[in-house]
Amino acid sequence: MFKNIKNTLLIFTLVVLSPVHIHAGAQQTEDEIVAAIRDKALKSPLAYEILESLTTEVGHRMPGTPQDAKAVDWAVKKLKSLKFDKVWTEPVSFKTWVRRHESAYIIAPYEHELKVTALGYSVPTPDQGIEAEVIHFNTIEDLIDSKADSAKGKIVFISRKMERFKDGSGYGPAVRARGNGASEAALKGAVAVVIRSIGTDSHRLPHTGMMRYKDNVVQIPAAAISNPDADLLERIFARQQPVKMKLQLNSGPGEEYTSQNVIAEMSGSELPDQKIIIGGHLDSWDLGTGAIDDGAGVAITVAAAKLIGASGYRPKRTIRVILWANEEQGLIGAKAYAKAHQQEMPLHVTGAESDFGAGKIYAFSSHVSPDNLQLVNRMSQLMTPLGIKYVNNQARPGPDLIPLFEQGMSVFALHQDGTDYFDVHHTADDTLDKVDPQNLAQNVAAYVVFAYLTANSEQKISR
Amino acid sequence: MFKNIKNTLLIFTLVVLSPVHIHAGAQQTEDEIVAAIRDKALKSPLAYEILESLTTEVGHRMPGTPQDAKAVDWAVKKLKSLKFDKVWTEPVSFKTWVRRHESAYIIAPYEHELKVTALGYSVPTPDQGIEAEVIHFNTIEDLIDSKADSAKGKIVFISRKMERFKDGSGYGPAVRARGNGASEAALKGAVAVVIRSIGTDSHRLPHTGMMRYKDNVVQIPAAAISNPDADLLERIFARQQPVKMKLQLNSGPGEEYTSQNVIAEMSGSELPDQKIIIGGHLDSWDLGTGAIDDGAGVAITVAAAKLIGASGYRPKRTIRVILWANEEQGLIGAKAYAKAHQQEMPLHVTGAESDFGAGKIYAFSSHVSPDNLQLVNRMSQLMTPLGIKYVNNQARPGPDLIPLFEQGMSVFALHQDGTDYFDVHHTADDTLDKVDPQNLAQNVAAYVVFAYLTANSEQKISR
Repeated sequence: MFKNIKNTLLIFTLVVLSPVHIHAGAQQTEDEIVAAIRDKALKSPLAYEILESLTTEVGHRMPGTPQDAKAVDWAVKKLKSLKFDKVWTEPVSFKTWVRRHESAYIIAPYEHELKVTALGYSVPTPDQGIEAEVIHFNTIEDLIDSKADSAKGKIVFISRKMERFKDGSGYGPAVRARGNGASEAALKGAVAVVIRSIGTDSHRLPHTGMMRYKDNVVQIPAAAISNPDADLLERIFARQQPVKMKLQLNSGPGEEYTSQNVIAEMSGSELPDQKIIIGGHLDSWDLGTGAIDDGAGVAITVAAAKLIGASGYRPKRTIRVILWANEEQGLIGAKAYAKAHQQEMPLHVTGAESDFGAGKIYAFSSHVSPDNLQLVNRMSQLMTPLGIKYVNNQARPGPDLIPLFEQGMSVFALHQDGTDYFDVHHTADDTLDKVDPQNLAQNVAAYVVFAYLTANSEQKISR
Repeated sequence: MFKNIKNTLLIFTLVVLSPVHIHAGAQQTEDEIVAAIRDKALKSPLAYEILESLTTEVGHRMPGTPQDAKAVDWAVKKLKSLKFDKVWTEPVSFKTWVRRHESAYIIAPYEHELKVTALGYSVPTPDQGIEAEVIHFNTIEDLIDSKADSAKGKIVFISRKMERFKDGSGYGPAVRARGNGASEAALKGAVAVVIRSIGTDSHRLPHTGMMRYKDNVVQIPAAAISNPDADLLERIFARQQPVKMKLQLNSGPGEEYTSQNVIAEMSGSELPDQKIIIGGHLDSWDLGTGAIDDGAGVAITVAAAKLIGASGYRPKRTIRVILWANEEQGLIGAKAYAKAHQQEMPLHVTGAESDFGAGKIYAFSSHVSPDNLQLVNRMSQLMTPLGIKYVNNQARPGPDLIPLFEQGMSVFALHQDGTDYFDVHHTADDTLDKVDPQNLAQNVAAYVVFAYLTANSEQKISR
């Protein structure tokens, strides 16, 4: 609707369609326009409304469950009702994993029920469960370093607790026990692995998440117990008596399934073929309702695109929102998208994914050509009123952008405060009440700044 | 071992037996002795060790379960190992209630699993569960005020949220829905009642607790859902479509059972027949491990009596620690004790029960004859260094002291900070990690001051 001349816009009309309050007829700089949409976003309840709708009307969205299909339907309807210019879906196929009964008990030297969850893609135990002595390792590294057959016939318990950091950097070192614990335990002769949940909380709500089996290693069941239960088990081990556990997991691999990446666009005014990619993943784990992981990312990025699209100002390039299918079980939607759109990679200008909850954004980073750093500098100035500081030009892609990044796309990262993120991540506690509407709106405002400036840049953004 | 002359003690010997460091041979005031034991208590890990032992080696102690008997055994052994002068048990009989499978789902207009727990003494649903439309009341008062048959054939949902206060005063107004919700709902034709948990947290861990059926009213099943689930249900109701739920509770009444009050004494040096009653209840609900409710009370009062008993100073009167059986299901142990000891009521001088978690004590109150207020004043001075202020002479008895109070016993109340108490009260989250060892030790120190001064008072304490 409007034409952009350098960074200055000549405003022709400002009709009711445009809810951004800039004095009609005045010449506005692009910075003033972005600031106006940003400030409107700060006051907009839209993202929270979207998140409320998703968590209330759909709930969890575990890949391949009936909830997955409901979420796709919900997303298509929601994006259409928000009057995106284009809304469509693209197929994503994978083998499902089905959660069924799961229970764990300490049966000696004392009797306790443990709060347990199977890890994603774990094989089941025999129907009657496994009863075995438990062997305790502080870390997966200790397990790896133990002698051959150290865990023969036993259930391995790995007790390392994840550390709490604002940037979530405690996750990487801790999550190895989840990803590889089963195969490393099997290599030492174990019959199952039970890990302390990869989480920073102290609630009886275990954290699920993916694990992987190594090739040519016996596949043994894998589960996580809650932090208080892991504390209890450590206290029992301190008594230096044999510890026995009964573990029953009926979860296991299911059928082939085809879900959908849900994609929507606010078309660019001049270079509509060029795309700025934002989004979050639509799937979630099944224990909670996927409010922070990643309903928040869905809500933030849909709201940001909508607020730009409805602002009365339309940037040059298209803002494409991708609600990724099945991120949780291995970036399946992201890989399918990258493969399907391989020929159009040069049209994927840059992107940012929101997938770290709903905490306030406190910093951002870029991974662009040095030629683009002037734009980044302007972005930084527009982020400053949001309390957001520029970090450096070494941004890592959000998970679903990894396949695009690997094919050469530039990326930005908007860093959320993740201090509390791993309290509820992948647990039953991932529910709407954990989300602060003000923080969510601040995220939207930051995505507005990022998406508008990159979509409207005179200069092409590249790596 | 030592004789008390007014408030002054002549110390004859201070051998290795006594870990309280007061210079041997010096004349000590009673205040100095109490202060020394109090300050030793502040540094003692004993209460935490007792609580660690109970929650690790026994776990939950629901009345009438095998865990109940294990707890009695644990308590007798622990008290004997702590060298109390006398340790014994007294029988407490009641009809048990047995928890079995429990589940709840919203099945229309959306599908959600709810985290649910049966309320204590609820009757079961039919085996296949109940499927019915849900009718929403904000409060039990709204339910009572609704027209006859307002809930005919429906499941009543009461959504009032308990308010958070330091003194726990949000509990009373909220808990009516738990106690009476079933009968009030039945009077309006309901087939079941589901309440928002009586708790101040936002976790997917429902709070159990006792309910009661009114005489001559149809008995319908009663359950509580977690706060986030109640939020969800409220959001669904806001959409003004019919809401349906499937509720399955197989819990219900069980057999007759005989548990035990576990009683131990540090005998008085001059008036051993006169008793100062301290204690907590040994039973707990079954969802957690009963760390704050009421393992903490057990640990605090046992440690206080032990520290006095082992101090080398022995007050005139006996300190009797009672670990009450089955408080949770109706003060059954307290009533049995009061009945069994009716003839000895005049020998029950005064008492205080610790049954409000493990938060710091910030105040205390008394309910004694005005003649005793000079002692209370001295108590206040010895409490001051612990950050504890005297409130007034209108103390209410701890729950298990109600039957003794009703028979005329004077009482004290040591007020704990309960700001967080109802976050975990009666949930799976009632575990050791919720207890701060320093706060627990501060509680012990306060009970030392209370028990020593009342046990050693020249003047008899009365109402």
